[in-house]
Amino acid sequence: MKISSSDAANPVINLDQGDPTAFQEYWMSMTMKERCVVVIPGWDLMSYFSDKTNVCWFLRQDLAEAIKALHRAIGNAATEERYIVVGNGSSQLCQAALFALSSLSEDKPLSIVAAVPYYSTYEEEASYVQSQLYKWERDARTFNKPGPYIEIVTSPNNPDGTIREPVVNRGGKVIYDFAYYWPHYTPITHRQDHDIMLFTFSKIAGHAGSRIGWALVKDIEVAKKMVQYLTINSIGVSKESQIRATVILNELTKSCRIKSESFFEYGNEKVKTRWESLRWVVDKTGDTFTLPDYPQAFCNFFGKSSSTYPAFAWLGCNEDKDLESLLKEKYVLTRGGERCGSDKKYVRVNMLGPNKDFEDFLNRLLTIKYPNCFEEIPCFEP
Amino acid sequence: MKISSSDAANPVINLDQGDPTAFQEYWMSMTMKERCVVVIPGWDLMSYFSDKTNVCWFLRQDLAEAIKALHRAIGNAATEERYIVVGNGSSQLCQAALFALSSLSEDKPLSIVAAVPYYSTYEEEASYVQSQLYKWERDARTFNKPGPYIEIVTSPNNPDGTIREPVVNRGGKVIYDFAYYWPHYTPITHRQDHDIMLFTFSKIAGHAGSRIGWALVKDIEVAKKMVQYLTINSIGVSKESQIRATVILNELTKSCRIKSESFFEYGNEKVKTRWESLRWVVDKTGDTFTLPDYPQAFCNFFGKSSSTYPAFAWLGCNEDKDLESLLKEKYVLTRGGERCGSDKKYVRVNMLGPNKDFEDFLNRLLTIKYPNCFEEIPCFEP
Repeated sequence: MKISSSDAANPVINLDQGDPTAFQEYWMSMTMKERCVVVIPGWDLMSYFSDKTNVCWFLRQDLAEAIKALHRAIGNAATEERYIVVGNGSSQLCQAALFALSSLSEDKPLSIVAAVPYYSTYEEEASYVQSQLYKWERDARTFNKPGPYIEIVTSPNNPDGTIREPVVNRGGKVIYDFAYYWPHYTPITHRQDHDIMLFTFSKIAGHAGSRIGWALVKDIEVAKKMVQYLTINSIGVSKESQIRATVILNELTKSCRIKSESFFEYGNEKVKTRWESLRWVVDKTGDTFTLPDYPQAFCNFFGKSSSTYPAFAWLGCNEDKDLESLLKEKYVLTRGGERCGSDKKYVRVNMLGPNKDFEDFLNRLLTIKYPNCFEEIPCFEP
Repeated sequence: MKISSSDAANPVINLDQGDPTAFQEYWMSMTMKERCVVVIPGWDLMSYFSDKTNVCWFLRQDLAEAIKALHRAIGNAATEERYIVVGNGSSQLCQAALFALSSLSEDKPLSIVAAVPYYSTYEEEASYVQSQLYKWERDARTFNKPGPYIEIVTSPNNPDGTIREPVVNRGGKVIYDFAYYWPHYTPITHRQDHDIMLFTFSKIAGHAGSRIGWALVKDIEVAKKMVQYLTINSIGVSKESQIRATVILNELTKSCRIKSESFFEYGNEKVKTRWESLRWVVDKTGDTFTLPDYPQAFCNFFGKSSSTYPAFAWLGCNEDKDLESLLKEKYVLTRGGERCGSDKKYVRVNMLGPNKDFEDFLNRLLTIKYPNCFEEIPCFEP
C-alpha cells in the first residue's frame, strides 16, 4: 500500500454511512458464489400475508426458523418464549418499539434516552415526526426526569464499539440493539436474554440492500403493538427479501463451524486486519489521533479469548479540532461526533467499506500528520 | 356454482384486506410461468445505495425506467420532469408525503382530509404516531378550517370506486392516490398530471407481497423531504423487491398490446366477470343490497367505451342494519363502512380474493335473503 501526497486530488471516500460492502468478497468467493442463489418465479409471493395465525402475520415461517437456528448456533441471544417481529431493517423496528412502548404507557410523551455517544439515527427516529407519544431527551447519563422512560442500549455500541449496559436503571423500558453482537465483531460472552432485542440482517454478513431486521420480543402486547406499527407504516415487509435472508441465514448457520467456510471466521479476520492497519497508522501519527481500546474477553463461539473489532472506528484527535472538517479537507466523509451527542473532535468511520476506500482512507489519514510522506503501510492481511 | 344452506358451517372468508391473489392464475399460466423468473446470487444487492447521484438514492435506475415505460405505454400518468420516489408500498409513501408537505408548511399541525367514504388506512396513517406536524380532520366535504391543508384524493376511490376530484379547492396541497387508475379497473380517460401522484405495485398485477410503491413528484424539495422520511423510517427499500418489480413491470409493458397475453386484457375480463356475478346476485336479492353504478367512459388504452370495475365492492344494505356484523354471521369478513368515515350499512368487500372465496361469498350473500335457497349462479366467465 503506497502513500502519496496527492490525495487531495483523489475522489471522495464516503465512510459516513455504514455500508457493509467489504463482505461482498466472501459471497463472491468460489466456495460461496453458487450457494445462496435465490430464484423467484413471477407467480410467487403475491399475498400480503405469510401466516395469518402468527402475531406477526407478514413474517415468513421459514425466516423465523432460520433466525432461531442462527441464534442457537452462535449462542448470542435467547429465542425461546419470544415473538419474532420482522421489519424493513432494524430502524423501522426501533420506531415500532418506541410506538409500542409509548402507546402502552400511561405517561406520554415518554422520554427516550441513549448514553453518549449514541447512534445518531436514534435521535432522528425519535424526533422527525414530532410524535406526542415520545420525546427525545438525549444523553442517558445526564437524564434525571422522574417517571417512565425508554433507554436504547446498543452493545457493542455504535459509534464507539464499547460493551454497554443500561445506565439509567430506574425501572424504565430498555430497547437493546444488538446489531453488532456477532462473533466477528466482538466476543460472544453470554446469551443475551432481554424483553426487546433488535437485530439486523445488514450488519451480519453485509446484506444491507435487503432491508431486513428482526426483533425478539417477550411481551405479546408489545409484539402486537409493534406489528400494528409495521402494518400501518408499510403493511409488512418484502417477501423477496425475507426469502433471501432465509437462504443466507441458513447458509451462515450451516457453515459456521466449518473453519474454511465459516463467514464468522472470515469476517473476524477481515475486521481484525482492518483494525490492525488502522491502529498502525494511528500509532504512526504519534499523538495526533486516538482510538478506543477494547478489553479481551472469552468468546463462547470461537472458544478463545478475543478483542472487539467494531464495524465503526470512533476516531478522535488530541487537539481541539473539528475532525469531520479536517477529514473532509482530505475528501474523506465521516460522521461528526456532535451528531452522536458527543464532541466534534470525534468522528465515526465506517470500517466495512470497499478495500480500496479503506486503504485510501489510511493513506489520507497519514498525510494529515505527514503531508509529504510516502510510506508503505504493512500488510496485515492473513 | 351451487348454493347450499350450510354456509354457516363453512370456513371464514376474509374479504376485509385487499389481498389481490385473484391475479395469480395469470402469472401461473403456461404463457407467463417461465417469463418473469428473478434470479439473485448471494453476493448481489448488498449496498444500501442504488445511485448516490439521484435524489432518491435507494431507487434502482432500472426500476425508474420500468415505471416510466409502463406509464408511457398505458398513458395514465405524466412522468416527465418529475422525481420518482420508491417506497415500501404506497402507504409508506403517503406518510412520507404527509411528512414532506407538513415539514415544508409554516402552519403546523397541517389539517389532513379525505372525502367520505375514504380508505380507512389514511385515518390510521395520519393519526397513529400522534404527530404534531399534521392532524387528521376527517371528511373533506365538511372541512371548513381556514388555512393550509392536505387533501388525499383517491381515484378510482377506495372503497367505493367513484372517480374523484379534490373537493376542498382552497389552494391546499393534494396527494393523489392512483393505486387503481389502471385500465383493467377503470377507463383511462386522460393522462394524470399532478404535483404528487402515488402508485402501488400491489394493485396493478397482484404483487402485494413485494411492498413496492412509487410517487411521481414535481417539486424537488417535496421529493427530498419524502426521501428523508424514507431514509429515517427504513433506510430505503428492499433491492430484491425492486429487481422483481422491474422485471414484472417490464413484462406488463412489453405484452400490454398483445391481446392474448396482455395482463390488462386478462385483468379487465377477470374483474368485469366478477362484477357481473356480484351484480347478478345483488339483483337476485331484490332490494336487500345496493351497489354503486359507474358511468361508461372512453378508455384511451383499450380504444373503446367501458365502465369501472373496482378492486373493492362498496356493498350497502337498504335497511338500517350493521352490514359488517350481518356478513360476519355468515363468516364473511369485510371492512365496515364506519371505518371509512361512512355508515355501518355499508361494507368494503375485496373483489380480488381467490376464486373459491369469491364464489363462496356470493353464495352466502344469497342465503342472507334466501336462507334455504339452492340455486345456480350463472357463469359469467368468458
